[in-house]
Amino acid sequence: MSTLTLSCPVPVTTRDHVSLGHGSGGKLSAELMRDVFLPAFRNSTLERMEDQAVFAVNNGRMAFTTDSFVVKPLFFPGGDIGSLAVHGTVNDLAMGGAKPLFLSTAFIIEEGFSMEKLRRIVDSLGRAAKDCGVQIVTGDTKVVDKGSGDGVFINTTGLGVVTEGVYLSAGEARPGDAVLVSGSIGEHGIAILAEREGLEFDSPVESDSAPLHKLVADMLETTHAIRCLRDPTRGGVSSSLNEIAAQSQVGIMLDEPSILIREEVRGACEMLGLDPLYVANEGKLLAIVDAKVADELVAVMRRNPLGRDARRIGTVSGMDAGWVTMRTVLGTTRIVDMLAGDQLPRIC
Amino acid sequence: MSTLTLSCPVPVTTRDHVSLGHGSGGKLSAELMRDVFLPAFRNSTLERMEDQAVFAVNNGRMAFTTDSFVVKPLFFPGGDIGSLAVHGTVNDLAMGGAKPLFLSTAFIIEEGFSMEKLRRIVDSLGRAAKDCGVQIVTGDTKVVDKGSGDGVFINTTGLGVVTEGVYLSAGEARPGDAVLVSGSIGEHGIAILAEREGLEFDSPVESDSAPLHKLVADMLETTHAIRCLRDPTRGGVSSSLNEIAAQSQVGIMLDEPSILIREEVRGACEMLGLDPLYVANEGKLLAIVDAKVADELVAVMRRNPLGRDARRIGTVSGMDAGWVTMRTVLGTTRIVDMLAGDQLPRIC
Repeated sequence: MSTLTLSCPVPVTTRDHVSLGHGSGGKLSAELMRDVFLPAFRNSTLERMEDQAVFAVNNGRMAFTTDSFVVKPLFFPGGDIGSLAVHGTVNDLAMGGAKPLFLSTAFIIEEGFSMEKLRRIVDSLGRAAKDCGVQIVTGDTKVVDKGSGDGVFINTTGLGVVTEGVYLSAGEARPGDAVLVSGSIGEHGIAILAEREGLEFDSPVESDSAPLHKLVADMLETTHAIRCLRDPTRGGVSSSLNEIAAQSQVGIMLDEPSILIREEVRGACEMLGLDPLYVANEGKLLAIVDAKVADELVAVMRRNPLGRDARRIGTVSGMDAGWVTMRTVLGTTRIVDMLAGDQLPRIC
Repeated sequence: MSTLTLSCPVPVTTRDHVSLGHGSGGKLSAELMRDVFLPAFRNSTLERMEDQAVFAVNNGRMAFTTDSFVVKPLFFPGGDIGSLAVHGTVNDLAMGGAKPLFLSTAFIIEEGFSMEKLRRIVDSLGRAAKDCGVQIVTGDTKVVDKGSGDGVFINTTGLGVVTEGVYLSAGEARPGDAVLVSGSIGEHGIAILAEREGLEFDSPVESDSAPLHKLVADMLETTHAIRCLRDPTRGGVSSSLNEIAAQSQVGIMLDEPSILIREEVRGACEMLGLDPLYVANEGKLLAIVDAKVADELVAVMRRNPLGRDARRIGTVSGMDAGWVTMRTVLGTTRIVDMLAGDQLPRIC
């Protein structure tokens, strides 16, 4: 298996135009990063390719992360672009083991956008920040002419202080480690899709959008034997685990029956031909941890409402380095590859 | 004069839709900030309304600032959206007395955008960052469907360390202070407009887009008797000085003959009915300084290529608090008010 190649059939250097897949969080995104952005911006912090930069400032370590939110629709069951813009960035800081402190917000608004909707979004963003205990300390607003945007895009950039003694990295997974997830998967993506396409369920699927920094704090208070944390957003569980497998040069074996997927999400995925492993989450985390502390950590996570369905879903191995595989409910084994492009564009 | 009111005729609370003027940096922007953003995000750092947040972290003070760039066209004489996105954010850090250290970049790309142009922009951004000595340590890329964006929008968010003993604020101007500017004004706005409208000049006007942190370092090495620094971007010299006059509750009297405006810029402004005091700059700074050090500072600024045309253009007074006035070349006095909306949308 390790003789196969992970590269795309058409390298970015020979592509003439940017496609939706380049924003997918899948292989095309990775390729764009590797071929266009990294060569131009090269430095050792960026090259670590984590979801947040960690560096030393004033005798401490800080985490710094940025995300633009272009989710469509702007309002969806379980949240809106405002709360999502806070949770997404708070979570990227938390995955670096940082206590989130400060946010910047930058709005790009399309001319003619409803002032009432803007107010709802801004209020939601402010409330979410307050609930997370982070301060929005600086901001920017641009307005583009009608037809040059799509309602509202929001960038949030976050700053936090990394807990002393904590060094989390996608390059730290080791054979024998356990793979944990904090709950059921696929809810954010399906909630967005249902709203966008007008799908109806018996019991509606809500986005899981939520801030995970307190769950992470609970985990780090228990043990520092945590190698890596990732929130499986764009590209889902599959993309996050593939990144870890590649950066740590380990294999990751998932156990399908252990993975919790809500009935409505499973049904929607079957109906739409989607694989829930690739569907975005906005309030879940994956943790690669020393197997010795796995049970204790799962117990700790379950005491936090955002981790009440936490469980172990897989194991890191020294074989098939760079690959994620899954033992299915049928007892067979399949490769869980990274998608080239996107199942669901504009999911966040 | 001080009995007049600065508020807009139609408050934002009764407006139904966002207009281009809300992104202008003028009165409408201020109103949107005051009525929509500030109430939702309220905290003491944000309320200072500087172009950067300054806060204590790890026993030091840091500056943090964000800007989205939606300039149209993407390439213009003297720069492009990539270099502009670096200079704009580096300058906002510098105006807070901070040494710029780290940048995040977040791209929102429209589906179908030319890969070759994207590469040029990214390369330009990377080169500008390198020239400034700042590292791009984290980033994000989103792609929106065709017709939902306009080529490329870029957010840069910057982080820097504030020089010890330096406290700059738009609220610190005092009667008797001198108003300095680092050079000629209006070039960025006219360069963009000329490119957009296909105007031709005998000698072309180039954007003044440039990083000012070294000029600021030269100034702060000379003296700490500097009250406030501002880069007069959107809304031009007029908006920056009006903000200072309002926040410090002082009057500012400009001396028109002292203000340097290049011949081509003056001609273009006359032809187009623009007032150069309202036209954006991207490589100039305004400094409010103790009058005692004004001459020395002008001399220091002139030794730096980016300040070679530095000069004193006005005086802070205790009269007409909150107002900017100008003694014209004709010897009359006029009010230099803040515009409600925009002379030139999408200038940065």
